[in-house]
Formats: sequence, C-alpha cells, structure tokens
Amino acid sequence: MPTAVDTSLEFQQKRIENALEQGRIQDAIALLITLHPADRAEIFNRLDDEAQRTLLTRLDIATIADLLEELDDEEAVEAAEEIPTERLADVLDEMEPDEAADLLGDLPPEQAAEALAEMEDADEVRPLLVYPDETAGGLMTTTYIALRRHTTAAQAIEFLRQVSDRTEIPFYLFVVDKERRLVGVVDLRDLLAAAPDTKMEAIMDPDVIFVTAGTDQEEVARVMAKYDLAAIPVVDAQRRLIGVITYDDIVDVLEEEATEDIYHLASVSDEDIDPESPVKEQLKGRLPWLYLNTLTALFASWVISHFENIIAQAAVLALFQSVVAGQGGNTASQNVAMTVRAIALGKLSPKALVRVIWKQFLTGLLLGILVGSVVGIGVYFWRGNLYLSLVLGLALVGNLSVGSVVGVLVPLGLQAIGVDPALASSILVTAVTDSAGFFIFLSLAAHFLDKIAG
Amino acid sequence: MPTAVDTSLEFQQKRIENALEQGRIQDAIALLITLHPADRAEIFNRLDDEAQRTLLTRLDIATIADLLEELDDEEAVEAAEEIPTERLADVLDEMEPDEAADLLGDLPPEQAAEALAEMEDADEVRPLLVYPDETAGGLMTTTYIALRRHTTAAQAIEFLRQVSDRTEIPFYLFVVDKERRLVGVVDLRDLLAAAPDTKMEAIMDPDVIFVTAGTDQEEVARVMAKYDLAAIPVVDAQRRLIGVITYDDIVDVLEEEATEDIYHLASVSDEDIDPESPVKEQLKGRLPWLYLNTLTALFASWVISHFENIIAQAAVLALFQSVVAGQGGNTASQNVAMTVRAIALGKLSPKALVRVIWKQFLTGLLLGILVGSVVGIGVYFWRGNLYLSLVLGLALVGNLSVGSVVGVLVPLGLQAIGVDPALASSILVTAVTDSAGFFIFLSLAAHFLDKIAG
Repeated sequence: MPTAVDTSLEFQQKRIENALEQGRIQDAIALLITLHPADRAEIFNRLDDEAQRTLLTRLDIATIADLLEELDDEEAVEAAEEIPTERLADVLDEMEPDEAADLLGDLPPEQAAEALAEMEDADEVRPLLVYPDETAGGLMTTTYIALRRHTTAAQAIEFLRQVSDRTEIPFYLFVVDKERRLVGVVDLRDLLAAAPDTKMEAIMDPDVIFVTAGTDQEEVARVMAKYDLAAIPVVDAQRRLIGVITYDDIVDVLEEEATEDIYHLASVSDEDIDPESPVKEQLKGRLPWLYLNTLTALFASWVISHFENIIAQAAVLALFQSVVAGQGGNTASQNVAMTVRAIALGKLSPKALVRVIWKQFLTGLLLGILVGSVVGIGVYFWRGNLYLSLVLGLALVGNLSVGSVVGVLVPLGLQAIGVDPALASSILVTAVTDSAGFFIFLSLAAHFLDKIAG
Repeated sequence: MPTAVDTSLEFQQKRIENALEQGRIQDAIALLITLHPADRAEIFNRLDDEAQRTLLTRLDIATIADLLEELDDEEAVEAAEEIPTERLADVLDEMEPDEAADLLGDLPPEQAAEALAEMEDADEVRPLLVYPDETAGGLMTTTYIALRRHTTAAQAIEFLRQVSDRTEIPFYLFVVDKERRLVGVVDLRDLLAAAPDTKMEAIMDPDVIFVTAGTDQEEVARVMAKYDLAAIPVVDAQRRLIGVITYDDIVDVLEEEATEDIYHLASVSDEDIDPESPVKEQLKGRLPWLYLNTLTALFASWVISHFENIIAQAAVLALFQSVVAGQGGNTASQNVAMTVRAIALGKLSPKALVRVIWKQFLTGLLLGILVGSVVGIGVYFWRGNLYLSLVLGLALVGNLSVGSVVGVLVPLGLQAIGVDPALASSILVTAVTDSAGFFIFLSLAAHFLDKIAG
C-alpha cells in the first residue's frame, strides 16, 4: 500500500523504544527493518545512547551500512565510533564508496587508518580520500558505468542486467575512449528506446557538461541546477572520467550552502551547530564573532565619546542616536542579504557593478527621505523641538544612504578578494553604519545645540 | 567534444550582440541555437530590450518555448508579454504543461485567458491552473507514464519506445489500478534489468511515497530530499494519480526557499528583488519593514526617555547603552538564524522545546559572562570607573541571557501560530533586546549614579 509520509514515525519510535526497554531486541529490530532507511535513521537518531549501542551490536552489517549512509555526518561519526574496528570495516565495505570515504575522513585518523587496513574494498575508497569534502572529488562516487563508442544498445543492456545485482544502475551511462577520456553521455531512457544494434556513438550526447575533481561543491550545484542534470561526470586534468555526482548529493549541498549563508549572515561560524547542540559547541561557534562585534561596537562608543559634553547638555540626543545607527544598519543588512544571495546564485554580473551601486545609493536616499520624514514628524509631535526633528530626519537620510551603498560594496569587495561575503559582511557593515550614524547625528546636533538643548 | 562549463558565454554574448547590431539577425539566431537552452536563456536575459524583441519575433516556436521554460518567472512574463497572443498560444502548446501553467498564472489575466482560448492543448494545462504556485499541484507536470499491474516488461518497453518521440520518458513509471489509484512505482532501471515477461506487479515497489496536490512545496522538497527521490507522484483525495514532480523542480524550490529565508531574516519581504531591481521595487519590498523596525526603535527611545535626567548627569552612559542593546540583539540573531533553519530542515522536535530553551538560557548566560567581563575590563582601562564597568558587564550578562532565550522562543512561537518565523522574528526579537538592553543598563546605572557621574 502506498503510504502518506511521516504519518506514524513518532508512534513507531514509541513501539521500538518500548521493545528495547523490555529487552525484546529482536522485536525492536523487526520493527525498524520494516521502515524506509531514511525513517530508520531518523528514529535511530532520536533514541538514547544506550538504545543506540544495543542496536549497533545487533543489527546486521547491511542495515548498519544503510544507517550510516542516511545519518548526518556528525551523527554517523558518533555511531561509527561505537562499532569495533573489524565490524566497522565490513560496514564500510558495504557502503557506497563516496559515503564510506566521507565517513573515514570524519573519523579520528587512527580509527580510520585501522578500519581502512581491514577493509576488502579499500581500493575503491582510498582514491576518494584525497579530495577535500567540499569539492567535486569529495562528492563523487566511483561506481559508475562507462561504455565504449562501438558498444551496441543490446550489449549495453545485457551488461546492465549482469551488474544490476551488485551495483545500482545510474540514470546516465558515460562513453569513454581507450584512454578513459570522456567523449559522451547516454541517457538510460534513450538506450531503452534505441534499436538493439544501435551503437553508443549514435545515441550519445557528445556535448557532455562535466566538472573537474577540484571544482567547489557550490559551483557543482549551480551547474547541475542550471542545466537540470540528474548526474554530472567528474574528470581529472587529462579529461579522464574518474567519478560521477548525482542529484541527491546536490540537494544536500544546496541545503548545506543555504545553512552556511544563513548562519554566516547571523555571525554563527559553525554550520554544524543548531539550537540543540551542546553549550560548549554553541560558545565555540558564536563567541568569537560576538567579540568581534563588540570590538566594532566599542569603536562606535569611541565615536560617541567625542560628543560626550554635547550629550551632557542635551541628553535627549541619547534617545535617538540608536535610531539613526540602527536603521542604517537595517538598510545595509537588506542589501547584504540580497547581494550575498545574488553572488551565491551567480546572478550578479561584474559589468553591472557601477549601475548597482548607483541604484542602491538612490534607493538608500529615498528610503532615508521616507523614513527620515516620518520619524522627524513623529518626534516633533513627541518632543516639540523642530531642530531635533530636522537633525534626526537629515541624519537618517544620510545614514540610510551610507548603509545602502556599503551594503552592496562590502560583500562585493570581500567576494573580490576571496573572503566569504556572508561571514564578514555583517560585522564590517554594522561597524560603518553604527559609527557613521552616531557621527552624522551627533555632529549635526552639535551645530544646533543651543536650539536642541533649549 | 565535451566542454567545460561557462568558458565563453561572455564571448558568445558579444558575438550575438554584434550580429544583432549589424542587422545580421540570422547569424545571431544561428549562434544562439548552438548553445545549451540554459545558456541561451542566460544570454537572452542579458540582451537589451530591443535585441530581445527582435529575437522574439524571429526565433521559431520551439526555441521560444525552451527559452520561456528556462527564464526566471518574471523574465518569462516580460518576454511573453512581447509575443502576439496567437503566437504565444503556439509557444504554450509547445511548453511542458506545468511550465505553461506557471507562465499563464503569472501573465495578466486577460492575456492569459486569450492565450488559453487559442491553445490546442489547453486541456492539459487547464487542470494545473487551479493549484497555487507553491503547492505540489503547482509544481507537478501531467506528462507521466502510468501502467497497470499485469503489464509485462516487454510491453512496457515497447510502449516507452512508441511514446519516446513525443514525450520525455521519466526515470520512474507509476502503476495504477483501474480507478487510476496509485498502487506502485517502477524504477526504469529495474524495468531494464527485468526479464521480458515479468509483470509490473513483480518489479514495482508498492510502498510508494507520494504527496497530495495541496502539499506545500517546502514539504515536498523535504520529503524528496529525505528519501533521495528523483521523482514523487502527486495524488488527489481519492489517491488517484494526477501528476509527478521531478528533482529539477525541487532544486528550484530549495533555492527559492533559501532565498526567502535569507531575505526574510534581513527584513526584505519580496524574494523577487535583487540588488539590480528597479528602485521602485526596492522601496516596495524594503520600506514597510524599515517602518516597522523604526517603530520598535522609537519604542526603545521611549524606554530611554525615562532615564533622560540620569543621562544628563552621566553622559558617559550614552556611549555604552548601544553596546548592551546591540550585543543582546546579535546573540538573539544567532539563535533566530539557527532556529529558523532548524525549522526549515524539520530538525527541531517539539519534545525538545524545554531542553532547548534551558540550553539557550545557559548559553546566553555564559556568552554574557564572557563578553561582559571582557568589555567591563576594557572599559575600566579606558574610563577608569569601576562602577561603570560593573554595571556595563552585568547589563551584558542580563541582556545576552534575554537575547538568547527570546531568540529561540520568538521563532518557535511564531511557527506555532502559523506565522513565518523568518519574516517576523528579527523585528520582534530586536524590539525586546533593544528595550531590555537599554532598561537593564540604565536602571542599573541609576542605582550607582553618584559613583558613575562622579
């Protein structure tokens, strides 16, 4: 029976927990096995440590392999660390080579080396270990199917039938020359529709879009999304086929990169933490950026300190200085978010730079006039001081213009010098809008001090 | 020859622009036609309005259909509005039904009605128009292949060969009963590996994961990502198969949803704008939230106004009040970002709520102690006033604790009452951390006023 998703995961979890608590381990395993591997992993992850350990000793190798493939990276490492090396080696042999390589890369080096030494299929995994996690090489799997130009459709299908027990057939087959250089791609659907004696070179698409092993995963995702590819081949410097990346990896990459940008924009530098992470990890991923933010905030304090005696004469200024600084910061944040996103999606052309800055200056100016006039009028009714209102309104016009321009300049500048614009922009931009906001407002106020203090 | 991506798009664009400027329109079209449809759309989008109009009148129907499918929604609408209705109807007939329905839904109602009336395949598209864009119904296509249980592999393959000229074969085939209710799914790869007389019921997976037409696109993406699906069937209330959503739609959804969250967190309410959008649209998507932010900032001003005479006596307080408010706000933003992301990825279990809030209170307290002590010591060396430093340090401890807790409470609360946590959290949270920050700092300072002002 087809089933609606997620209807009863909580219920299944309860049943499995009950069985484990009552020592009916086989029952718990039987329940777990009926579930989709993704659901199995989700429930496993919610069990307490003891229940997890019990299951890891009792589940069979193939089920543990599925489990480690489905768990998030850190969760998989935690589970793997509980498994004796010899057993872990068997599990790794059973896993997809790219998943096994990822896990080995995340394990403590000693445990990884031992497990690798015990593995039967270590040769499939070892070449993958050299590629950084966030590159095409780190994402690709080495289980793909390569054919030659002169292979016929009938031969190809016969070959696929033979290997289908051992390996998952991909949706795309690749055609290589005798040096294993990539020369074309065959869509499984075209193979199916082809007459039996059709040669691969007749149905292959010679315009294969590929990436090299060192390509950044974000770029890989962008290319696959742009060209709607379910799989993309990875080649080495000699254009020899060395692996394949499939759409499901890309979905993970897109989620990872979005998380990274969202976290970085909010000054969280560790994408692996979430609200439930241990306090120690929270501090590690958040404190350094708060310290940096504090430093720029104290710089803004220093800017204000030059106006201390003016504030002493007109304390009312202390009420509104933050409005000017804050709204400049908000305007800048809007631009930082849009610019970081446009960079991530590859939507900003360098040619448009001057136009964009001009447009954002205009936008900031207009936002400043619209916000500044409303605030000026509102504060006039509250405090009844025309000069205070004028100074406040003008300062908002100035600081929103500044904020809007730095909000595009800073991320684009950081991108140009190779720094992640999402991570550093917020701090730099706030430093500017805070300091500029206080300076513009208070120095304007200094000019009309007798009218404002009066 | 396989080609590296993007090598020469700028160069191709230049050549096409030159050809168009010199009136060699056929040359421009010939150059455009050799490119991948996705590249064609990218270049088309960068051409000026006149060049676009020229191409739209001269390109053939199929090429325009490809183009409109590849362009972003708004770009496609702009282009479609330039095409005479009769021609547009032919283009729409040529497009995939789901893409045609999306475009019709975005066109001015009158133009859409006229085009629909002129279309030959209007019947394929009309049923799709009733579903909102952001639901499974709005994403799905109606071109899928449904077989019966007793169909043999040979019959299925023969059928696929027959239709392969007219329609794109999907990677998954669906099995339905005589009421068209979904009963199973057949992976094309299993079909290929099956003996010719195998019946579909023998190779189909009866545990099909499906969604209903009204399912939100974010949920669809989450399910497909979780279960690594290249396609998911969509059913009506009677479990009758009505459409299919493929992985490429999901990639778009993931990008859209990430953009939406990033924009909303930065108080930009219109996901369709970017730094290059017209100033008018910038104002529309940004001004309302700046006004709301200003309102909460003025509320914070009102909080400060109760301490006006204290600031008049100790203007130095005006230097540091924003540090307390700002760092509380930064701490809260970190939690808002993590919580919004955890909600989007379905990672937060309601059961964990109390534990999360406690953990974040602890985190905020520790961050407050670590930031507060450093700031307190630093400011002591700067200003030499122990009481000022103590008050400042304590206020930071208090406000970072407050910020950390509201940073999880507010997004979770908004989610619980059905409001987008990304859009409203920032403003509510800043309102709290600003007001609380000023209040805690200034009321503590009031207690030690003679020591600080001294």
